[in-house]
Amino acid sequence: MSTQSDKAREQLDDLLERGEISRETFAEYSATADTAVSSAPHTGGQTHTTAPTQFVEADGIRFAYRRFGNPVGTPTVLLQHFMGNLDNYDPAITDALAIGREVILTDNAGVGLSTGSAPETVNGMARDAAALIDALRLEQVDLYGFSMGGYVAQQITVDRPELVRRLMLVGTGPRGGEGMAQLDPDVAPLFGKVYDPQDLMWLPIFFAPSDKSQAAGKQFLERIRTRTDDRDVPVSEATVAAHSAAARAWGAPAAGSFEYLRGIEQPVLVVNGSNDIVVATVNSYLLQQNLPNAELILFPDSNHGSQFQFTDQFNRYATEFLDR
Amino acid sequence: MSTQSDKAREQLDDLLERGEISRETFAEYSATADTAVSSAPHTGGQTHTTAPTQFVEADGIRFAYRRFGNPVGTPTVLLQHFMGNLDNYDPAITDALAIGREVILTDNAGVGLSTGSAPETVNGMARDAAALIDALRLEQVDLYGFSMGGYVAQQITVDRPELVRRLMLVGTGPRGGEGMAQLDPDVAPLFGKVYDPQDLMWLPIFFAPSDKSQAAGKQFLERIRTRTDDRDVPVSEATVAAHSAAARAWGAPAAGSFEYLRGIEQPVLVVNGSNDIVVATVNSYLLQQNLPNAELILFPDSNHGSQFQFTDQFNRYATEFLDR
Repeated sequence: MSTQSDKAREQLDDLLERGEISRETFAEYSATADTAVSSAPHTGGQTHTTAPTQFVEADGIRFAYRRFGNPVGTPTVLLQHFMGNLDNYDPAITDALAIGREVILTDNAGVGLSTGSAPETVNGMARDAAALIDALRLEQVDLYGFSMGGYVAQQITVDRPELVRRLMLVGTGPRGGEGMAQLDPDVAPLFGKVYDPQDLMWLPIFFAPSDKSQAAGKQFLERIRTRTDDRDVPVSEATVAAHSAAARAWGAPAAGSFEYLRGIEQPVLVVNGSNDIVVATVNSYLLQQNLPNAELILFPDSNHGSQFQFTDQFNRYATEFLDR
Repeated sequence: MSTQSDKAREQLDDLLERGEISRETFAEYSATADTAVSSAPHTGGQTHTTAPTQFVEADGIRFAYRRFGNPVGTPTVLLQHFMGNLDNYDPAITDALAIGREVILTDNAGVGLSTGSAPETVNGMARDAAALIDALRLEQVDLYGFSMGGYVAQQITVDRPELVRRLMLVGTGPRGGEGMAQLDPDVAPLFGKVYDPQDLMWLPIFFAPSDKSQAAGKQFLERIRTRTDDRDVPVSEATVAAHSAAARAWGAPAAGSFEYLRGIEQPVLVVNGSNDIVVATVNSYLLQQNLPNAELILFPDSNHGSQFQFTDQFNRYATEFLDR
């Protein structure tokens, strides 16, 4: 017991030292670490940076995932954004969530180290992600979907309501939302631009133009670069094309396209930046207005990746929402 | 020092016993009570229920107010809604805020026990409220404006930016917001209906039709009835008429009516329910979108008085915002 406590403390010390959590978050978790840890054995002190990439087979696909955290309560499954793989999840968020639950980072079919081909529909992506969850023998999960991952999270909740306890929808929107059928002509080229290193592409896509937001963006890049061993591989061009088609079809305006939201009875936390240039911020408002049980948080001076900018606040809201 | 700690603890015990704060809030504050109390003398253990109504003269008006809490940092001045007086502030909110700062509940000119006549413009109401703040010799305050009090809070911030550190805008909207020129024909009669007791009027105005929201409404009414001595007096018909005119003028659509929001540089917390029937929820979204530094929180299954329904969450967000 005391060994597990010590491990959790060491882990917290590490996170603080690496700047992945703030002093406030450290103090908060430090106070509860003993209790959390004594209620269940901790998973061997793994963190975002150290958790090995694992694989599981389902429907003929070999899915890549990473799993770590405190195995108490309901695990949180994270569903990734367009062009992102296992290395694009933010350790400042996943390590904070992992203190109170297990987190499972996923590559959907055809993404990064996962085999299979990426479907050209969100329905197909939801079917694949649910197959992965089933293969891990998880009876109920909380879903955290960012951007296109948020489309997939909504669709899983519609298709498999018993599988989902709570839902976090970040930087995303409903089927047929406003301006979602295609990217803004100023924004689309940002996804095709070549950078050195390539992850610089996320600065204009996830962060607002202000100095403050861009500085937060640079810290975010530092964080996702921290893991140096056992990294994922880039998303293929075929997958990019398939996912583009899926996102366009999801976003196409259609009469009654918000109707399905009325049937999602799970508590939902909707989060976005004040000016999301990828999935316009108004879509987060529309999600909240059409979901029967959703809370909305919009952060100031921020863009598509507001959770990477207001990380401490986001972690506080998210953990409080999941622990409720 | 230990006497002050004891007092703060007794106060917390009282609040918990009366159901004004939850067990979670109690635990949270209990842990910090010693520190908070030892850093400054506490104001004689007054609470929402016991703080005497006081008076101060300014511009020929005798303003009624109540002041209590921990005199550290910036005090929070609360600006009341249409037809509300000192007894319509929620002790579950004011007592929670008062643990970390002084709170000052106000009756504007012509309201309740305050003398003077109520102006027919928000500009006039802002001038009067600022005169009250000046008369209390407060150099800088945080403003908490609910509904019409939110119009006044915005106007004070525009007129006297140096006076305002942070702003909380709850169940309110911008000048010329959507559907703000007049109340919805279904809603207007709710303000004129006679009830026994009269405070039952707030159930349909502040709370959603769901059982859960209405149950929260009944608890709110219990809370605002707790204070039995030294109560305020009802708002006069003349004041109701003047404030109606002020609200209509504020809400009248006009080109560029949101422009002033760009000039409010203070951090702002905007809060509302999912379906505000008095000041449509979209206006909270519009505030966040047009203010340069605002965070938005929208609660589910709630109406104009969402802060009275999600009180613990609201207190957590509000104190965290004020302490930042």
